[in-house]
Amino acid sequence: MDSLTLIAICSIITAGLTIGIGVLGPSLAEGKAVASALNALAQQPDASPTITRTLFVGLAMIESTAIYCFVVSMIVLFSNPFWNYFIAQNGG
Amino acid sequence: MDSLTLIAICSIITAGLTIGIGVLGPSLAEGKAVASALNALAQQPDASPTITRTLFVGLAMIESTAIYCFVVSMIVLFSNPFWNYFIAQNGG
Amino acid sequence: MDSLTLIAICSIITAGLTIGIGVLGPSLAEGKAVASALNALAQQPDASPTITRTLFVGLAMIESTAIYCFVVSMIVLFSNPFWNYFIAQNGG
Amino acid sequence: MDSLTLIAICSIITAGLTIGIGVLGPSLAEGKAVASALNALAQQPDASPTITRTLFVGLAMIESTAIYCFVVSMIVLFSNPFWNYFIAQNGG
Amino acid sequence: MDSLTLIAICSIITAGLTIGIGVLGPSLAEGKAVASALNALAQQPDASPTITRTLFVGLAMIESTAIYCFVVSMIVLFSNPFWNYFIAQNGG
Amino acid sequence: MDSLTLIAICSIITAGLTIGIGVLGPSLAEGKAVASALNALAQQPDASPTITRTLFVGLAMIESTAIYCFVVSMIVLFSNPFWNYFIAQNGG
Amino acid sequence: MDSLTLIAICSIITAGLTIGIGVLGPSLAEGKAVASALNALAQQPDASPTITRTLFVGLAMIESTAIYCFVVSMIVLFSNPFWNYFIAQNGG
Amino acid sequence: MDSLTLIAICSIITAGLTIGIGVLGPSLAEGKAVASALNALAQQPDASPTITRTLFVGLAMIESTAIYCFVVSMIVLFSNPFWNYFIAQNGG
Amino acid sequence: MDSLTLIAICSIITAGLTIGIGVLGPSLAEGKAVASALNALAQQPDASPTITRTLFVGLAMIESTAIYCFVVSMIVLFSNPFWNYFIAQNGG
Amino acid sequence: MDSLTLIAICSIITAGLTIGIGVLGPSLAEGKAVASALNALAQQPDASPTITRTLFVGLAMIESTAIYCFVVSMIVLFSNPFWNYFIAQNGG
Amino acid sequence: MDSLTLIAICSIITAGLTIGIGVLGPSLAEGKAVASALNALAQQPDASPTITRTLFVGLAMIESTAIYCFVVSMIVLFSNPFWNYFIAQNGG
Amino acid sequence: MDSLTLIAICSIITAGLTIGIGVLGPSLAEGKAVASALNALAQQPDASPTITRTLFVGLAMIESTAIYCFVVSMIVLFSNPFWNYFIAQNGG
Amino acid sequence: MDSLTLIAICSIITAGLTIGIGVLGPSLAEGKAVASALNALAQQPDASPTITRTLFVGLAMIESTAIYCFVVSMIVLFSNPFWNYFIAQNGG
Amino acid sequence: MDSLTLIAICSIITAGLTIGIGVLGPSLAEGKAVASALNALAQQPDASPTITRTLFVGLAMIESTAIYCFVVSMIVLFSNPFWNYFIAQNGG
Repeated sequence: MDSLTLIAICSIITAGLTIGIGVLGPSLAEGKAVASALNALAQQPDASPTITRTLFVGLAMIESTAIYCFVVSMIVLFSNPFWNYFIAQNGG
Repeated sequence: MDSLTLIAICSIITAGLTIGIGVLGPSLAEGKAVASALNALAQQPDASPTITRTLFVGLAMIESTAIYCFVVSMIVLFSNPFWNYFIAQNGG
Repeated sequence: MDSLTLIAICSIITAGLTIGIGVLGPSLAEGKAVASALNALAQQPDASPTITRTLFVGLAMIESTAIYCFVVSMIVLFSNPFWNYFIAQNGG
Repeated sequence: MDSLTLIAICSIITAGLTIGIGVLGPSLAEGKAVASALNALAQQPDASPTITRTLFVGLAMIESTAIYCFVVSMIVLFSNPFWNYFIAQNGG
Repeated sequence: MDSLTLIAICSIITAGLTIGIGVLGPSLAEGKAVASALNALAQQPDASPTITRTLFVGLAMIESTAIYCFVVSMIVLFSNPFWNYFIAQNGG
Repeated sequence: MDSLTLIAICSIITAGLTIGIGVLGPSLAEGKAVASALNALAQQPDASPTITRTLFVGLAMIESTAIYCFVVSMIVLFSNPFWNYFIAQNGG
Repeated sequence: MDSLTLIAICSIITAGLTIGIGVLGPSLAEGKAVASALNALAQQPDASPTITRTLFVGLAMIESTAIYCFVVSMIVLFSNPFWNYFIAQNGG
Repeated sequence: MDSLTLIAICSIITAGLTIGIGVLGPSLAEGKAVASALNALAQQPDASPTITRTLFVGLAMIESTAIYCFVVSMIVLFSNPFWNYFIAQNGG
Repeated sequence: MDSLTLIAICSIITAGLTIGIGVLGPSLAEGKAVASALNALAQQPDASPTITRTLFVGLAMIESTAIYCFVVSMIVLFSNPFWNYFIAQNGG
Repeated sequence: MDSLTLIAICSIITAGLTIGIGVLGPSLAEGKAVASALNALAQQPDASPTITRTLFVGLAMIESTAIYCFVVSMIVLFSNPFWNYFIAQNGG
Repeated sequence: MDSLTLIAICSIITAGLTIGIGVLGPSLAEGKAVASALNALAQQPDASPTITRTLFVGLAMIESTAIYCFVVSMIVLFSNPFWNYFIAQNGG
Repeated sequence: MDSLTLIAICSIITAGLTIGIGVLGPSLAEGKAVASALNALAQQPDASPTITRTLFVGLAMIESTAIYCFVVSMIVLFSNPFWNYFIAQNGG
Repeated sequence: MDSLTLIAICSIITAGLTIGIGVLGPSLAEGKAVASALNALAQQPDASPTITRTLFVGLAMIESTAIYCFVVSMIVLFSNPFWNYFIAQNGG
Repeated sequence: MDSLTLIAICSIITAGLTIGIGVLGPSLAEGKAVASALNALAQQPDASPTITRTLFVGLAMIESTAIYCFVVSMIVLFSNPFWNYFIAQNGG
C-alpha cells in the first residue's frame, strides 16, 4: 500500500467517525436544553422572551461544539494538509 | 488488494457507521424534546403556540446534527474526493 | 480474495449493522414520546387534538432519522456505487 | 476460502446480529409505551378510547423500526443481491 | 477448513447469539409492562378488564420482537439457505 | 483440527453463552414483576386474586423468552443438525 | 493440540463462564424481590401470608433461570455429549 | 505445550474468574435485601419476627446462587473430570 | 516456555484478578447495608438492638462472598493443586 | 511505510478523535447549564440579570475546555512540530 | 524471555492492577457509608454515639475488603511463592 | 521504523488523547457546578455575592484539573524530553 | 528485548495505571462525603462539631485506599524488588 | 527497537494516560462538592463560614488525589528512574 492510499483510507474513516461520535454530545445537550425551555415556558409563560433568548444563546453555544467536529471532518475530507503534501510530492 | 478496493471498502463501512452511530444522539434528543413538549402542553394548554414554535425551532437545531452525519455519509458514498482522485489516476 | 468479494462482504455487514444499530435511538425516542403523550392525555384529556398533532409531528421527525439509516442500508445493498463500478470494470 | 463461502458466512452472521441487536430498542420502547398506557388508564379510565388509539398508533410506529431490521435480515438471508450475483457467475 | 465446516460453525454461533442477545430487550420490556399493569391494578381495581386487555395486546407486540429472533435462529439452524446450497453442491 | 472438533468446540461454547447471557433479561424482568406484585399486594390486598393471576400470566410470558434460550442451548448440545450431518458423513 | 484437549479446555471455560455470568441476573432479581417483599411487609403486616406466598412463587420462578445455567454447566462438565463421542472414538 | 499444562492453565483461570465474577450479583443482591430489611425494621419494629424470617429465607436463596459459582470453582480446581482423564491417560 | 512458568504466570494473574474484581460487589453491598442501617438508626433510635443485630448478620453473609474470592485467591497462590502436580512430576 | 506517511496518518486520526471525543463533555455540560438557567428563569424571573451573567461566565469556562481540544486538534493538523521536523529533514 | 523475567513482569502488573481495581468498590462504599452517617447525624443528633459506633464497625468491615487486595498485592510483590521457587531453582 | 518516528507518533496520539479524554470530567463538573449555582441563585437571590464567589473558587479548582491535562499535552507536543534527547543524539 | 527493558516498561505502565485508575473511587467517595457533610451542615448547623469530626475520620479512611495505590505505584517505580534483583544479577 | 526508544514510548503514553484518566474522578468529585456547597449556601446563608471552610478542606483532600496522578505523570516524564538507568548505562 502506498502512502496516498493509506492517507485516503484514514481520512475517510476519520471524517466519518469524527462527526458520527461528535454529534452525540451536542444533540443530547440541545435536547436537554429544549426540553428544559419547554418546561420553563409551561411554568412561566410570561417570561417567554427571556426564556427564548437564553435558549437561543445556549443552543448557539452547544451547536458550536458540533460545528467544531463538522469543520474538522470537512478539513479532513476536502483540504487535508497531509494529502495535499503527498499529492504535491507526486506531481499531483 | 489495490487502492481502489481498499478505498471502496472503507467508504462503505464509514458511510454506514457514520449514520448508524450518528442518529443515536439526535433521535434521543428529539424524543426528549417532544416528550417535554407534550408534558408542557398538558400542563399549560393555553401556551400552545409558544410551545409549538419553540419545539419546532429546537427540533430543527437537533435535526441539523443528524443532517451533518447524513451529509458526510452521502459525500463518502457519492462524491468521495479520494475515490475520485484514484479513479482519475486510473484513467477512470 | 478479489475485490468483488471483499466489497460484497463489507456491504452485507454494513447494511445489517447500520440498520441494526441505527434503530436503537429512534425506537427508544419514539417510545419516550408515545409514553409522554399517553401521560399527557391522562392528565389533560381536553387537549387531545393538540397533543395528538404534536405527537405525530414529533414521531415523523424521529422516524426520519431511522429512515436515514434504512436508506443508507438499502443504498449499500441495492445501488452501491462502488459495487457498480467494479461490476462495470469486469464487463459486468 | 472461495467467495461463495465467505459471503455465506457473512450473510449468516449479519442476519442474526441485525435482528438480535435491532430488537433491543423497539422492544424496550414498546415496553415503555405499554407501561405508560397502563398508568394512564389507571389514572384516567374515562379516556380509554383515546389512550388505546394513541397507544396503537405509537406501537405501530415503533414496531416499524423492528420491521426494518427484520426486512434487512430476511433480504440478507433469502434475496441477497451479492450472493445471487456470484451464484450467477458460477453458472448458478 | 472446507466450506461446510465454516458455515456450520457460523450457523451454530449465530443461532445461539441471536436468541441469547435478542431476548434481553423483549424480556425486560415485558417485565416493565407487567410491573406497570400490577401497579395500575392496585391503583384502579375497577378498570381491571381494560388494563388486562391492553396488557395482553402490549405483551403480544413485545413478544413478537422476541419471536423474530427465535425465527431467525431456527432458520439458521434448520433451513439455512446457504447450508442447503453447499449440501446440494456436494451432492448432499 | 478436523471439522468434528471445531463444531464440537463451537457447540459447547455457544450452548453455555446462550443460556448464560440469555437468562439475564428474563430473570431481571421476573424480579421486577414480582417486586411490583408485592407492592401492589401491600397497597391493595383486596385485589389479591386479580394481581396474582396477572402476575402468573406475565411470569409465563417472560419465562417463555428464557425457555427459547434454553431450547436453543439444548438443541445445540443434543440434537445439533450440523453435528449430525458430519457424524453421518464420517459413517458415524 | 488434539481434539480431546481442545474440547476439555472449552468445556472448562464454558462451564465456569456460564454459571459465573448466569447468576448475575437471577441473584439481582431475587434481591429486588426480597427487598420488595420486606417493604411490603413493613407497609401491610396483615397481608403477610399472601405476600410470603407470592414471594416464594416468584423466587422459585427466578431461581429456575439460575438452575438452567447450573444444569448446562453441569452437563458441560460431567455428561458432555461431544466429549463422550471423542472418548468413544479413541476407544476410551 | 502439552495437554496437561493447557488444562491446568484454563482450570486456574476459570476457577478464579467464575468466583470473581460470580459473587458480584449475589453480594449486591444481599446488600439490597439487608438494606431493605433495615428500612422495614425502622418503619415497622413490631413486625420484626416476620421481617427477619423473610430476610433469612431470601438471603439463603441469594447465597445459593453464589454457592453454585463456588461449587463450580471448587470442582474445576479439585475434582476436574477432564484433568483426571488426562492424568489417568498418562498413568498419573 | 515450560509448563511451570506458564502455570506460575496464570496463578499470579488469577490470584490478583479474583480478589481485585471479587471485592467490588461485597464492598458496595456492605456500604449499602451500613448506609441503610445508619438511616434506620436515625429514624428509629429505639430499635437500635434489632437493627444492629440484623446488620451484623447481613454483613456476615455479604462478607462470606468476599471470603470465597479470598479463599480461591489464596488456594491459587499457596496450595495450587496443578502447581503441586507439576512440581511433583519434576521431582520438585 | 516511511516516517512521513506514518506521522500523517496518526495526525489525521488524532485530530479527528481529539475533537470528536473532546466535545462530548463540554456540550453535555453546557446543555445542563442552559437547562438549569432556564429553570431558574422560570422560577425567579426577577433575578434574570444575575442568572444570565452567571450562565455566560459558566458557559465561557466550559467552552474553554472544548477550545483546548480544538486547539490541540488544529495544532496536530496545521502546525504539527513533529511533521515539520521530518519535512525539514527531507529538505521539505 | 526466561521464566524469571516473565514472572517478574506478571507480578508487577498484577500487583498494580489488583490494588488499582480493588480499591474502587471499598472506597465508594466507604463514601456512601460516611455520607449516610452525616445525614443521620444531621437528622438525629441525639443518636450520635450509636451512629458513630455503627459507622466505625461498618467502615472496618468495608476496609477489610480493601485490605484483602492490598495483602494480595504485597504478597505478589514481596513474598511471591512462584518467584521464590524459581529463584531457588536458579541457585537464588 | 526508527526511534524518532515512533516517538513522534506516540507523542501525537498521546497529546490528543490526553486532552480529549481529560476534559470529560472537568467540563461535566463545571456544568454541574454552574447548574447548581443557577438553582441557588433562583432560590436565594440575596446570597448572590457569596454564591458567585464560591462558584468561582470552585470553577478555578475544577479548571485546574483540566489545565493539568492541557499542560501534559503541551509538554508532550512542544518540550518532550525524550524527543529532545533523541534529536540531540542525532546531532539534531 | 532483554529482561531489564521489559521490566522497566511494565513498571512504568503499571505505576501510571495503578494511580490513574486507583484514584477514581476514592476521589468520587470523598466528593460524596463532602457533599453530604455540606448538606448536613446546612440542615443542622448546631451539630457542626460532630459532623466535622465524623467527616474527617471518614475522609481519612477513604484517603487511605488512595494511599494504598500511591504506595504501590511508588514501590513499583522506586523500590521494585524484581528490578533490584535483575540489576544485582547484572552486577548492577 | 532499542531499549531507550521503548522506554521513551511507554513513558510518553503513560504520562498522558495517567493524568488523562486520573482527573476524571477528582474533577467530578469537586463538581459534586461545589454543587452541594452552593445548595447549602442557598438553603442556609447564615452558615456560610462553616460551609466555606468545610468545602475548602474537602476540595483540598480531593485535589490531593489529582495531585498524585500529576506527580506520577511528572516523575515519568522528567525524573524517570528507569530512563535514567539506561541513559547512565549508555554513558548518557
